Amino acid sequence: MPAVEFWLEFASTYSYPAAMRIASLAREAEVTVRWRPFALGPIFKQQGLPLDSPFNWQPAKARYMWHDVERLCTGLGLPFRKPDPFPQPSLLAARIALIGLPQGWGEDFACAVYRAEFGGGRQIGDAAVMAEILSGLDLDAAAILARAQGDEIKAELRGVTEQAQRLGIFGAPSFVTEDGELFWGNDRLEQALAWAKRPKDAA
Amino acid sequence: MPAVEFWLEFASTYSYPAAMRIASLAREAEVTVRWRPFALGPIFKQQGLPLDSPFNWQPAKARYMWHDVERLCTGLGLPFRKPDPFPQPSLLAARIALIGLPQGWGEDFACAVYRAEFGGGRQIGDAAVMAEILSGLDLDAAAILARAQGDEIKAELRGVTEQAQRLGIFGAPSFVTEDGELFWGNDRLEQALAWAKRPKDAA
Repeated sequence: MPAVEFWLEFASTYSYPAAMRIASLAREAEVTVRWRPFALGPIFKQQGLPLDSPFNWQPAKARYMWHDVERLCTGLGLPFRKPDPFPQPSLLAARIALIGLPQGWGEDFACAVYRAEFGGGRQIGDAAVMAEILSGLDLDAAAILARAQGDEIKAELRGVTEQAQRLGIFGAPSFVTEDGELFWGNDRLEQALAWAKRPKDAA
Repeated sequence: MPAVEFWLEFASTYSYPAAMRIASLAREAEVTVRWRPFALGPIFKQQGLPLDSPFNWQPAKARYMWHDVERLCTGLGLPFRKPDPFPQPSLLAARIALIGLPQGWGEDFACAVYRAEFGGGRQIGDAAVMAEILSGLDLDAAAILARAQGDEIKAELRGVTEQAQRLGIFGAPSFVTEDGELFWGNDRLEQALAWAKRPKDAA
């Protein structure tokens, strides 16, 4: 079965609808999805960009983006509430997701984080909010949070983020097919799935 | 018949596929399109942004964008050749398009400019290239170029660009429906056409 990597950043607005859409679209397309949580902050920093969201650099673009995300969520039947502050600190959630993915609960956790953040306007940098989400998934929140704050997972997230950079990723969500094609944006999820299914000699 | 405004900037890469796609998609959707050439430079300037293309601020994003535009053009069967320098000076083409639209040749001219620029890598700031395009449309190139360099058309382009700003436009291509909804990007052309056709009480 062809595969797509789904590169997600928990602070990213458009990663929310992508996370909510990808499972059913990939099932329909018969494409396997590998969820790859990473951190955009270090990538922006290395590019000499403000660590803030790109949407905060341009007020007109920011106004459009919030309206557009809300319009998009309405169309998909997803709740939407703008988190304040934006962007939310996303490293803790990314580290927890890295623990959860090989254990089989990472995707549910990621979706729950996006729902809390952009559906409920919750503070995802708050360990208590993370604990609540983990407990809601019947997981040992205390043990997971302790591990998420340890050096091993921090190093893993740094490594994953360096890999994102090597793949040419500069924003989220991004999708990468097995032949290395990069697609940026929730808008491009369908295109990435279609690309993943192309016959191997079509390139 | 419902209508959509198509806000285009001649320096904008993604305005090229949008210009090539919009006529047939709008015909199919039974939506009228009003072409609105404008200038992004003054909008970037007012926002305190570099006058350069946003794609030049981030090398990784720029690399992606050129690959993506070429991939998009290949998919649409459109020729693609990166113009050098990028962005190309676009004010002369915008002024000529403003002359041509009320005279009925503006859309053909705009498409010819995009084909020359992004299909042929031509210099669209060069009056000789504009003259060639105008002559190819059986128009009086010398008379049109003289008018395009006059104060009246320059003031008109400034006015149009101020209107774009009031509509919240910050990039190109953009689409605006009759109820003021803004959609940004070639990706969103279909969504804008669908929005234009919504029943008036659906909002």
